[in-house]
Amino acid sequence: MITISAWAAKEKGGLLKKFTYQSEIRPLETLVKVKYCSLTRGDIRFIDNFWGDIVYPVVPGLEIIGVVEETGSEVKNLKIGEYVGIGYQIGSCFKCEYCLSGKEQFCASQKVIPINGYGGLAEQIIVDYRFCFPLPKNLQTPEAAPLMCSGLTPFSAIRKAGVKRGMKTGVVGIGSLGHLTIQVLNKIGCDVTAFSHSKNKEVILNKLGVNKSSSSTDDKELSRFVRKFDFIISTSSASLNWDQYLKALKPNGTLCFVGLPPENISFKAELLADYAQKIILGSYIGSRKDMKDLLKFAAENEIKAVANIFPIKGINEAIEKMRNSEIPFSTVIVV
Amino acid sequence: MITISAWAAKEKGGLLKKFTYQSEIRPLETLVKVKYCSLTRGDIRFIDNFWGDIVYPVVPGLEIIGVVEETGSEVKNLKIGEYVGIGYQIGSCFKCEYCLSGKEQFCASQKVIPINGYGGLAEQIIVDYRFCFPLPKNLQTPEAAPLMCSGLTPFSAIRKAGVKRGMKTGVVGIGSLGHLTIQVLNKIGCDVTAFSHSKNKEVILNKLGVNKSSSSTDDKELSRFVRKFDFIISTSSASLNWDQYLKALKPNGTLCFVGLPPENISFKAELLADYAQKIILGSYIGSRKDMKDLLKFAAENEIKAVANIFPIKGINEAIEKMRNSEIPFSTVIVV
Repeated sequence: MITISAWAAKEKGGLLKKFTYQSEIRPLETLVKVKYCSLTRGDIRFIDNFWGDIVYPVVPGLEIIGVVEETGSEVKNLKIGEYVGIGYQIGSCFKCEYCLSGKEQFCASQKVIPINGYGGLAEQIIVDYRFCFPLPKNLQTPEAAPLMCSGLTPFSAIRKAGVKRGMKTGVVGIGSLGHLTIQVLNKIGCDVTAFSHSKNKEVILNKLGVNKSSSSTDDKELSRFVRKFDFIISTSSASLNWDQYLKALKPNGTLCFVGLPPENISFKAELLADYAQKIILGSYIGSRKDMKDLLKFAAENEIKAVANIFPIKGINEAIEKMRNSEIPFSTVIVV
Repeated sequence: MITISAWAAKEKGGLLKKFTYQSEIRPLETLVKVKYCSLTRGDIRFIDNFWGDIVYPVVPGLEIIGVVEETGSEVKNLKIGEYVGIGYQIGSCFKCEYCLSGKEQFCASQKVIPINGYGGLAEQIIVDYRFCFPLPKNLQTPEAAPLMCSGLTPFSAIRKAGVKRGMKTGVVGIGSLGHLTIQVLNKIGCDVTAFSHSKNKEVILNKLGVNKSSSSTDDKELSRFVRKFDFIISTSSASLNWDQYLKALKPNGTLCFVGLPPENISFKAELLADYAQKIILGSYIGSRKDMKDLLKFAAENEIKAVANIFPIKGINEAIEKMRNSEIPFSTVIVV
C-alpha cells in the first residue's frame, strides 16, 4: 500500500486541507508524481456538490501533468520518468460497444475525477495507464495542464461538427475553455468571432487569434449576424438568447454546447428549420484518440493556456479568486 | 396569357371557392395539368395565415402530381404527356453558394407554394421545370402525391443524420409525415418504434414496418427507453417532454425535428452532453437531388401514402375532416 498526500474539501464548499489516503498500484495502473494541476469551474462545482453526486472528502483536480514514478505489471508503453497528462476520465470498461469503437468517453461504467477517484491536487495519483497520455517536450509546462479537459472538450466537439479551414466560427464565453477554443479554431484556419459579456479581454484575444468581437448578451449587437456562421460553440454556463445565435448560423450551421447552463436550453423550433437544416450539438470530453490528436495538434501549434499560476500553499486563495471571477482564463497549481 | 382555374380561400380561414388567374409560360417554365394534389397540415395553416405571411386569395396545394402540357423554350429533359411531381419549392436563384452546391432548399431567394405562387388545387400550374420531377410508373397515383413534401422532408433529414441499416430508430407523431417516415426507415433496414398519442393505429403501423409502439406522452412508458435509439424523428407539432426523448437516445444519437411545435423546444442542457455527444437536428424539405433519390427509393420499395381520397368537389369536406382530426394519415384530392 502507498500513502498519498492530497488536498481535500472535507465538507460542501469547504476550504481545501491536507488529507492522506491509502492506495495500491494494480497491474494496469501507473503511479504518477503530480507536477501541475489546474483548478476548473468543474472543480469548484464538485467542492460545492453542485450536481449532488459527491462523497466527501473530495480531492479535486482533473487536469493533471505529472511524471511516471512506478508502473503496474501489465502497463505498456510508459517509461519511468516520462511526462504524462491526465484528464477527467481515468477509467472505462474496454468491453462495451463504445469502448470497442474507440469512444471510451461514452462508456456507461467509466470512471471520472473526483466522482470515482481522488483527483490531482495531490503529491501523487494512481491511474489506469490507458488514461495517461505521454506529453511532447513543449507541453511539459503548467500552461499545458488545462488542455487535458478544457482543451479536449471543445477539440472533440469541433471535430464532431466537421469544422474545417476557412469556416466562419464563433466562440461564446471567453474563459478557460473559450480561450483554448479560440486558439484551436484559429490554428485550424477558421475566422473566429468572440462573443463575450466583458470588453476588457480584446487585446489578448486578438493575440490568440480572434478576428472580431461582439457582446454575447446585447440583442441589438447580435442581430447584426444573420446566416453568417458555420459553427458557434458556447463555452459559457450562462443562459443566453439562443434564438439570436441560431439566427446567426448559416442554413447548415451548428450551435455547439460545451458549457452547460443550469437552466433549460430553449429556442423557437422554426429557427432550426427555416430554409435550413441546423444542428445543435452537445459534447462531453473526448476519446483517447481525440486526446492524443489534441496533444499533437497543440504541441505543433504552440497552443496553451493563459494561466494564473499558484503554488500549492496558495490553493485556497486561488479558489477564492476564481469564485470572485478575478481570474480571466485558467488557474494552475504547481504541486 | 393562360387563364388558370383554381380553388382559393379568399380570406383567413375561408372555404375554398372557384378562382381564376392569368399567367404565362416563361422560357424555363412548364405548364402542368394537375391530376392529384394533397392537402397537408401546412395547407390548413396557410389558409389560416398561421405564420402571418399570406396574401389572399391563397391557392393551397404543395404536393402535386400532374402531366406536362406545354414547355417553355429553354426547358430540357421534360416531354409533353410525362407525369411529374411538384413539391413545396418551385424556384430558386441557381446562383448562390447553396444553389451552386446542390442545396437549393437553403437558397434565400427561393420560391415556395403558396407564399410565392398559387398552389396545386387547380386545373393547371406553371412551374420552373427544374422543380418538376419525372415520376416512375408506379408513382403516378394519388397515393404518391404526399411524397413530394411529407415524404421529402423526413427523407432529407434521415440522410443528413446518417441513418443506416440496423439502427434503432423512433418516429414521434404518426400522421401524414410519420407514416411515410416509418416506411422509409423500415426499407433502409432500421428497427422502428412508433411514438403516438393514439393507440388505434397499431395494425396498419405494423404493416408499414413498425416493430414496437409506445405512448408519446406518458412519461412512465417513455422512461423505459434509456440510451436505446440512434435516431428519433419528431413529425409532431405537439410540445412533448423532450428530456425523455433525449434520455432515450444513445450517447451519439440524433433527435430530429421535422414537425415544428409552435411553443419553444426546451430541454435540460446536460442531457446533450452527459457521457454523450448528442445532436438535435432541424430539417426543411430537401434538395432537388434528395427529391430525385427519394422518388427512386420510393418506387423501388413501393413506398406510398395511406390516403383518404376526395374528388375536387369534396375539397371543403376534406378540409373540415382534417380540422376535426378525422383523417389518420394523408388526404389527396383528385382534381
